[in-house]
Amino acid sequence: MDNKQNKRSVFYVSDRTGKTAESLGQSLLSQFDGVEFSDRTFAFVITEMEAHFVAGEIQREYEASGVQPIVFSTLVNDEIQQFISATDACVISLFNSFIDPLEKSLQIKSSHTIGKPHEEFGDEDYKKQMDAIDFTLKNDDGIRTNLFDKADVILVGVSRSAKTPTCLYLAMHFSIKAANYPLTDDDLDNENDKLPEFLLPYLDKIVGLTIRADQLSAIRQQRRPNTAYATLKKCQHEVKRAGIMMEKAGIFILDSTAMSIEEIAVNLVKEKELLKNN
Amino acid sequence: MDNKQNKRSVFYVSDRTGKTAESLGQSLLSQFDGVEFSDRTFAFVITEMEAHFVAGEIQREYEASGVQPIVFSTLVNDEIQQFISATDACVISLFNSFIDPLEKSLQIKSSHTIGKPHEEFGDEDYKKQMDAIDFTLKNDDGIRTNLFDKADVILVGVSRSAKTPTCLYLAMHFSIKAANYPLTDDDLDNENDKLPEFLLPYLDKIVGLTIRADQLSAIRQQRRPNTAYATLKKCQHEVKRAGIMMEKAGIFILDSTAMSIEEIAVNLVKEKELLKNN
Repeated sequence: MDNKQNKRSVFYVSDRTGKTAESLGQSLLSQFDGVEFSDRTFAFVITEMEAHFVAGEIQREYEASGVQPIVFSTLVNDEIQQFISATDACVISLFNSFIDPLEKSLQIKSSHTIGKPHEEFGDEDYKKQMDAIDFTLKNDDGIRTNLFDKADVILVGVSRSAKTPTCLYLAMHFSIKAANYPLTDDDLDNENDKLPEFLLPYLDKIVGLTIRADQLSAIRQQRRPNTAYATLKKCQHEVKRAGIMMEKAGIFILDSTAMSIEEIAVNLVKEKELLKNN
Repeated sequence: MDNKQNKRSVFYVSDRTGKTAESLGQSLLSQFDGVEFSDRTFAFVITEMEAHFVAGEIQREYEASGVQPIVFSTLVNDEIQQFISATDACVISLFNSFIDPLEKSLQIKSSHTIGKPHEEFGDEDYKKQMDAIDFTLKNDDGIRTNLFDKADVILVGVSRSAKTPTCLYLAMHFSIKAANYPLTDDDLDNENDKLPEFLLPYLDKIVGLTIRADQLSAIRQQRRPNTAYATLKKCQHEVKRAGIMMEKAGIFILDSTAMSIEEIAVNLVKEKELLKNN
């Protein structure tokens, strides 16, 4: 009995991708220690037949385990949602719970239709996003430095400090043209503690990424095990040298240690107020 | 008065990136036609001082416009949330609204602490994500075809059918190793209607991306205006030829017309059940 109580099935149900339901659901469930959650996502649940199928899966899980499943739903359509609500699960309807207070505040009725992402995400936005992704791919890893004047932001840091994935996230989710430049041994070991000459005209849009040396070493170890490149000593040296140069240049420095790519990206947008220019 | 009623300020407030609040908020607000929403996001609101500042901004907006702002909050900490709840806004607390029913269902108390993403997002996950991004960058645009056996999925389609951004999304958000191959004129105009020879061993993991010719033409026009490449006629020809070859090969074909990158990616994961292998 105790054993059963400590395991719980979770279902995410959405008429779109399910990402919002997952994100909020995971955040809520992380508040409950000692429970082992196993989850399934049903995305693009649009027809009554699909909703009926999902409801069947939820109910079957309840009958098999004898424990109430938890369902996070972002279904917009009431008639579709009813199939899910009719199960014996603990159903959290992220959408329907808030339509009432919004209708009251806005003093109009909701249209209760499934969201059409392309209304918000128009051609102009799509073009911007594609342009940013193209730019970022072309300007990854210091391949070119002659396009830095067109960049919205330039990330600088040692190898494996999360520059590339952060740039891709910025391009994909914020349509920001993000270039990056990896600091090499040659750059790091110059005597005047200065960032490379060709970066100096762009200091206002350069962000330094730093990371704790032990975490960097662990990441490099996964990549190229037992190389000088991955040793703690080498990482400590590079992180220290890069730190000195970044501080001397007076650029904004972000410590990516223990941050997910999403968090690094959002922090950077917040700090540099990058969206103001967009 | 009418004029005021049709404009509404929206605030997204989060102790993390704010993406969940934005996503659910935008989905809810899209149900209200004829209202013009202007929004601001406050991410990483963690201290009482920050919450106090945000509450001040919300209250100031109310006093300036005379219209109740709408606030979507995913703040976890009750004491921090109280600052926001104390404003005169219509405050939708996405988090706190659901802790009670979850506590009842799980029969335990929540810990009410701010989520630590790195508990869910461990080193192993980070490595997988980085590996997938590295792989995808190396295998973009048919640069290499000798690594196709290591790919989880290979996207095939004509130029500008959203292959690259979809691959990047799959790598970033699902840690899927996604390669892509663009069908060129040479590929498209072969007489036996077959996909290129070197793709044939991988048909089970190839997905064809298609798109309506007029949308493709519009996208290419933005890219390279007034070129033969962007004409409707050329696009119609390519889309038709690609369609014939994909159908003959019997691969799964996804129509990306009017889909966002996120939707294409999630549809693809759902259809190919890509996560089962992970």
